[in-house]
Amino acid sequence: MSVITVVGSGMMGSALSFPTRDNGHEVRLVGTMLDRQIIDEVRTTGFHPTLKRELPDGVKCFQLEELDDALDGADLVIGGVSSFGVDWFADDIVPRLPKGVPVLSVTKGMANAQPGQLTTFPALLKARAPATDFCAVGGPCTSYELADRVQTTVCFCGKNLSLLEQLRAILRTDYYHISLSTDVTGVELAVALKNAYALAVTLAVGMSEAKGLPQQYNSQAALFGQGVAEMRQLLALFGGGDENIVWGAGDLYVTVFGGRTRQLGTLLGEGLAFEDAITQLAGVTLESVVIASRVAKALREKVQLRVAQADQFPLLLHVDEIINSKVKVDVPWNDFERVSQS
Amino acid sequence: MSVITVVGSGMMGSALSFPTRDNGHEVRLVGTMLDRQIIDEVRTTGFHPTLKRELPDGVKCFQLEELDDALDGADLVIGGVSSFGVDWFADDIVPRLPKGVPVLSVTKGMANAQPGQLTTFPALLKARAPATDFCAVGGPCTSYELADRVQTTVCFCGKNLSLLEQLRAILRTDYYHISLSTDVTGVELAVALKNAYALAVTLAVGMSEAKGLPQQYNSQAALFGQGVAEMRQLLALFGGGDENIVWGAGDLYVTVFGGRTRQLGTLLGEGLAFEDAITQLAGVTLESVVIASRVAKALREKVQLRVAQADQFPLLLHVDEIINSKVKVDVPWNDFERVSQS
Repeated sequence: MSVITVVGSGMMGSALSFPTRDNGHEVRLVGTMLDRQIIDEVRTTGFHPTLKRELPDGVKCFQLEELDDALDGADLVIGGVSSFGVDWFADDIVPRLPKGVPVLSVTKGMANAQPGQLTTFPALLKARAPATDFCAVGGPCTSYELADRVQTTVCFCGKNLSLLEQLRAILRTDYYHISLSTDVTGVELAVALKNAYALAVTLAVGMSEAKGLPQQYNSQAALFGQGVAEMRQLLALFGGGDENIVWGAGDLYVTVFGGRTRQLGTLLGEGLAFEDAITQLAGVTLESVVIASRVAKALREKVQLRVAQADQFPLLLHVDEIINSKVKVDVPWNDFERVSQS
Repeated sequence: MSVITVVGSGMMGSALSFPTRDNGHEVRLVGTMLDRQIIDEVRTTGFHPTLKRELPDGVKCFQLEELDDALDGADLVIGGVSSFGVDWFADDIVPRLPKGVPVLSVTKGMANAQPGQLTTFPALLKARAPATDFCAVGGPCTSYELADRVQTTVCFCGKNLSLLEQLRAILRTDYYHISLSTDVTGVELAVALKNAYALAVTLAVGMSEAKGLPQQYNSQAALFGQGVAEMRQLLALFGGGDENIVWGAGDLYVTVFGGRTRQLGTLLGEGLAFEDAITQLAGVTLESVVIASRVAKALREKVQLRVAQADQFPLLLHVDEIINSKVKVDVPWNDFERVSQS
């Protein structure tokens, strides 16, 4: 039995209490300053109000001011914050982590770095605590379905393969299947990119709806295929192994079918301006918007540096223009035509 | 203006009359012996009974016995048969084609060849008429949506790039976007494989339905991702370029959402034996079933020849066992776990 401290009691961090408790580990769930109500409610009723599920028996709840108690004796810390919480996690949590305890992070995204570069969150955190091993989870996994113990495949990535094997032994269940990769940039980039391209694919959902038509799969699939093509090229450009397209494509599939990214893509596809669509979604900032903007920024820098060609990424750059340059949806279908010679 | 003779008036062959007529070409639609009623109905009413759309004005209809008239003066022949008609097309049509007229085939599939090998249909046809150029269409395109002029991206493949460019000029419209590739094996294998893996992905649809649950996207995405992983490896194994995974993934996406392959996968996922599922689908033989069996056969031969490892293809081999060895669905989720080191 291991002691696992999950910092951040949002949906994904909390959903990981299912495989960990099913494996008999002690699970300590720590709320951030945004999670006070969640922790109160789970403590009182056992029910998680945003995951909308009863958490497994025996999950121990902690408010943020009880963090030190929650970390005392921990064998593993799970970083359960979204990309919007990663700076806070780096500033406020990482310095307080016990020495030698590894971190497994569910945060998806990439950060801008030197011109033309992107940094993974594990690398960003490692810069704060060089002695700590930071690993991350990628792969197609919605928190709801993990909590329902639906068959799920993910990938743990990190620099230390034997540590990854230990983490897999802790978390693997008969419904939670874990591949391992030491290509952190590749896995993290692929699973971040799928958010940007899910926004792109769901433009076609809105384009059909605006015409009062049923779902049109030719156009969704055209965007899906173009997304896979661009993701492969982005992996090559930013130093991720090509085999990670598997995580990009699988994760893209699951993301197209749920959540607010689909809602936003649909509204944009219907013809709304970005600002108006965001207003309709109650002003929430989405990870898909952030990652599309960040990757497009790094890509444009690479184009400036003459190490990338803009015309290989018409879909990402169009999404970026929709978000950041008040351009309305006008998918550059012709630019998707490619010629490849064997 | 070109004269285009479409042999086979099924759904896809007939749907190609939309971009060709929109571009002002003369289109001659020839029914096979199975298509008599279709040709009669289109001639009388203009309405295509299986495509369920009115064909564009000006399409000229021919019964099979009028083939020579239909071929007279043709600049391009479109092979509009399914994989079940390819032998007939090779035996009965290819010998009657005018010399020097290229063929563009919509047929998707691969044929078994020497042990451990698969042959593309263009290669198979070329063996009958070495002086003729055979090209093929791949990519995510349902015939209904092409007829509705939904934005669609496809790939024309063939050995002769300048011919491919000519074909593109004939067929390209503002809704039908055409990439080109001289990697015939890669494109054809990718678009054939997607049928096999669409069957695999939709097993998860049936597994949810059997439990009375809504769609579960973690498990569909797990199968989708595993499908992409295996398709990449199959491309490498059978000599197709890796970039064609774009066509495999895009085409897989569109195939998961429609047609009888989804119906079959769903029934199997619900727990029906293969024979019972086929009976429920009125005994129709599906291309997905044929291609899964053929690729699995060639793969098992490669394993015998010690040039492939069976454990890299757990999903394809499970689908093959369901089809050919009376095995019930029991997805080998654990076998999807991989370790990759950068």
